[in-house]
Amino acid sequence: MWGDIVRIDMSNLKFFRERVPLRYQMLGGRGFTSKVVLEEVKPTCYPLGAKNKIIFSPGLLGDIPLAPCSGRLSAGAKSPLTGGIKEANSGGTAAYRIARLGIRALIIEGKPPKNKWYLLKLAKDGVEILPANELTELGNYQLVEKIMDSYGKKISIISIGQAGERLFSLASIAVTDTLNKPSRYLARGGLGAVLGSKGIKAIIIDDKGVEDKKSFYDEGLFKKICKEHTKRLVETKQVLTKYGTMCSVEESQEMGCLPVRNFREGTVKELNKVSGEALYNRIKERGGKISYGCMIGCPIKCANLYNDKGRKYLVSTFEYESFSLLGLNCGISDFDTVGYLNRLCNDYGMDTIETGATIAILMEAGLLSFGDGEGAIKMIEEVRKNTILGKIIGQGAAVTAKVFGVDRAPVVKGQAMAAYDPRSNKGTGVTFATSPMGADHTAGCALPGRKGMRDDLNLDPHNSKDKVKLSCDLQTLIAAVDTSGFCYFSGLAVEDLERIAKLIKARYGVKVTGEDMINIGKTTLKDEREFNRRVGFTKVDDRLPEFFYKEKLPPFNTVFDISPEEIDKYFNL
Amino acid sequence: MWGDIVRIDMSNLKFFRERVPLRYQMLGGRGFTSKVVLEEVKPTCYPLGAKNKIIFSPGLLGDIPLAPCSGRLSAGAKSPLTGGIKEANSGGTAAYRIARLGIRALIIEGKPPKNKWYLLKLAKDGVEILPANELTELGNYQLVEKIMDSYGKKISIISIGQAGERLFSLASIAVTDTLNKPSRYLARGGLGAVLGSKGIKAIIIDDKGVEDKKSFYDEGLFKKICKEHTKRLVETKQVLTKYGTMCSVEESQEMGCLPVRNFREGTVKELNKVSGEALYNRIKERGGKISYGCMIGCPIKCANLYNDKGRKYLVSTFEYESFSLLGLNCGISDFDTVGYLNRLCNDYGMDTIETGATIAILMEAGLLSFGDGEGAIKMIEEVRKNTILGKIIGQGAAVTAKVFGVDRAPVVKGQAMAAYDPRSNKGTGVTFATSPMGADHTAGCALPGRKGMRDDLNLDPHNSKDKVKLSCDLQTLIAAVDTSGFCYFSGLAVEDLERIAKLIKARYGVKVTGEDMINIGKTTLKDEREFNRRVGFTKVDDRLPEFFYKEKLPPFNTVFDISPEEIDKYFNL
Repeated sequence: MWGDIVRIDMSNLKFFRERVPLRYQMLGGRGFTSKVVLEEVKPTCYPLGAKNKIIFSPGLLGDIPLAPCSGRLSAGAKSPLTGGIKEANSGGTAAYRIARLGIRALIIEGKPPKNKWYLLKLAKDGVEILPANELTELGNYQLVEKIMDSYGKKISIISIGQAGERLFSLASIAVTDTLNKPSRYLARGGLGAVLGSKGIKAIIIDDKGVEDKKSFYDEGLFKKICKEHTKRLVETKQVLTKYGTMCSVEESQEMGCLPVRNFREGTVKELNKVSGEALYNRIKERGGKISYGCMIGCPIKCANLYNDKGRKYLVSTFEYESFSLLGLNCGISDFDTVGYLNRLCNDYGMDTIETGATIAILMEAGLLSFGDGEGAIKMIEEVRKNTILGKIIGQGAAVTAKVFGVDRAPVVKGQAMAAYDPRSNKGTGVTFATSPMGADHTAGCALPGRKGMRDDLNLDPHNSKDKVKLSCDLQTLIAAVDTSGFCYFSGLAVEDLERIAKLIKARYGVKVTGEDMINIGKTTLKDEREFNRRVGFTKVDDRLPEFFYKEKLPPFNTVFDISPEEIDKYFNL
Repeated sequence: MWGDIVRIDMSNLKFFRERVPLRYQMLGGRGFTSKVVLEEVKPTCYPLGAKNKIIFSPGLLGDIPLAPCSGRLSAGAKSPLTGGIKEANSGGTAAYRIARLGIRALIIEGKPPKNKWYLLKLAKDGVEILPANELTELGNYQLVEKIMDSYGKKISIISIGQAGERLFSLASIAVTDTLNKPSRYLARGGLGAVLGSKGIKAIIIDDKGVEDKKSFYDEGLFKKICKEHTKRLVETKQVLTKYGTMCSVEESQEMGCLPVRNFREGTVKELNKVSGEALYNRIKERGGKISYGCMIGCPIKCANLYNDKGRKYLVSTFEYESFSLLGLNCGISDFDTVGYLNRLCNDYGMDTIETGATIAILMEAGLLSFGDGEGAIKMIEEVRKNTILGKIIGQGAAVTAKVFGVDRAPVVKGQAMAAYDPRSNKGTGVTFATSPMGADHTAGCALPGRKGMRDDLNLDPHNSKDKVKLSCDLQTLIAAVDTSGFCYFSGLAVEDLERIAKLIKARYGVKVTGEDMINIGKTTLKDEREFNRRVGFTKVDDRLPEFFYKEKLPPFNTVFDISPEEIDKYFNL
């Protein structure tokens, strides 16, 4: 298979190009990053020290946009937020260019002296490590503009904002999209702080001069499958194409699992004001953009671009998770306010989910009121200003709850929950509890229609029956998809893995089946849990916070009633 | 054997007097509190919630001051600082009066509504639970004076300061001594926050009217052993009697294990200015008190009373641990400044060890400079004022290090180390790593002359040989002594346990040997480790922070070189 490892040691600013070891041949994305973390990172190391490593890896077909949605970029490390293993992946154009440069994985290790900042440039000719102290204290938006002014627009940029520079545990990593906006985020687990700890403000990927010739084992078959798959995605993903991820507001309202006012209510009163359709109309009115692909060649096109009242660019992409956590969970439902909060998070490089959950904790503690949008803006500004309060917020919801004595903190393994209250979406609740990533919806979200790997599971989100099995299936499937480098919006069923396997076979000639892919997903999950075991995680870490078991969630008066014993069966199914 | 359990439910302000279960018959102090925590407290509960319990228990001979040093008081709970089990014990007069009331253990459970504060009064006639909101925001000194004005001086008081009211993880519990000063502290693990979470500002123990008649199995023998033991203590503890615990400054200087400037140096330059003798002379000059017993009838009398420049009372007792952490570890060596810091900690009810370690972290982070005494005072005032910075400090060294991005945090299981750098006092280092209590010297401190339970161990503090065995022995012995309710200054050798066993036998007629006592100590340690296992602790929690393994400690250039594998043999000796 293709590609090399590029390994950069920030302690001495040296880099090496290495062959991919044989046992890594079938791994891309998350499978690759998690294997490196397991094999190379000392489990007990300080996450922001020289011994942690951050690994970037595109998928196995990342250089071929024709393969629909194959351009995800994974980043992995030991997380400063959870202390455990972390992988986050995003769209954008970086994976494509990295793959075109023949780089299967970028492994960044070591640590430069304090206050030394660098810009990495990956290009056809090799790696450059350039001093970049003058770029510090820039937010992602200005940073990207400044870099593109110097290096042109036919590049991709991976970067951190002020939160990453300050090594805050809620710091994200930004990735530019097809419009050259820093709109896609490797958001969770504080990976921005790990990149910051390596002294890296930004990575430029310039694929100029790379030839477009590719060899295929069976090009005709490859193209045929791509075409079929693209057609299917265009046909089946129309709602996502039109409304983006904000289509989930209605879905979650129906289940009653929206996170509202620090996970106190499961629904909103005026759905029509906060629905995907309301957002769609607003974007249209303001001359924003609907339905664009964050990755080259994406047929789903769930991205959007939201303009402010003056029809000027405010933020892209306006997503369900960000809206729910920064908005509804803080009692804020106004699109403009949430859009602005979202923009600030993007600019300063803060995970919108963790930030929203943290602000809601501060509301719970009485520092500001639920619904106080201006106050929420001030809280985010504290992070940029690096005040003492900002430093607390920068550590995320769990630490903030500890400091302010709040016991209703919706966190697992130190990471805040995404926008699905586990009491009324129990399958996702099991994922939050058991995922090696902490409470992370992208690890296996039980949305309506996702049936796992069998046909006989009870899919009622309020019914605890079968939800451990469902979560286990979904976590396995998604680990497999993440390892292929495909976007999980493009399919999360066994037949999707089979299609991906066929594409890989048609490209490289390797014998691989859907079942093989699923087994790789399983192995990846096991690797991740093994790393966490070495860190010191036990089954006690696979629990939700106490209040989800006790407090009834309106309007369906659900509690999370899946017992620890049933949860612990997780890998014994 | 004697006594009942008094159980108080703060949810409904009811109390019950229960018989001590048979399996608790031989348990006092730590053995009792740890057994209750293991059997009754849900390991995963929120430490400041209704499901945690705080247990107070005197020792088995707590009502007989004739038995020298038998009047320790243990408190136990799930710790808000470590998340694991915690027992802390102190001198003072409370245990004596509790035992005289026939109370073997006081178990406080449940939780009152927020902002409801109470005063418990234990007396011959029973328990009173009195509203006490008017006592809030008082420091321990004023609180004790106020209560004694109302209830007389022939009482003991257990109380919390502002830190406990704010439920801070470094909050201690104060206990009055023979001079009616709140000078003795159940300091570690945040037990003051647990008492605060129960809405209890203070506990008055009034033993008026309790008859002095006691029955003995063999009074003559009992008195004979007491007399012998007292004589031996007077003869062998002369240094401790004269200099108090500050005699350890010279001892630690010699080993090179003083904690200086956030555990960066192992010695001080001008020993003569900070020695036990320097303190002794200062106290004498200022008309303070030397050599008084904190417990009734103590023959060691290591307590002292330090006056300020104006010869007015400043603080009692001026101790080695407080001086080292609040002073040397913060680069402060002036007795008056450290005495004042110590007084503030006592008054606000803050663990001096945790507070000193936390201020040093802030110095490491650059918020103030090492040596800045005025700055250190301000930091403690932040806690009283309950500012945002104060809330961080209130959570102790580990959380403060997390918020300010400091990786050199001398903590284990979330608790700051006492005043022995593990690199030059390796036996104590093993105790810090492995004790179920977190980094706690009272769990088994390898001071010169402490040889454990065998004669062939290498006792060189710089040599890693045998230190796991030594720590294991010391931890076992001390768990046994703590369970008897004797002060560990009165003996930490097998023959001391044998003497304690003889006293118990002469009093009650129960057949008990020194070996039985040691086995009870072992069981107590196992109970504690079992609770922590259920909380989710693993062997990975039995490690020191990374820098102790890497950074050489001057002047002996030692590192902590005992491998994890050797540490993990701990209970397999």
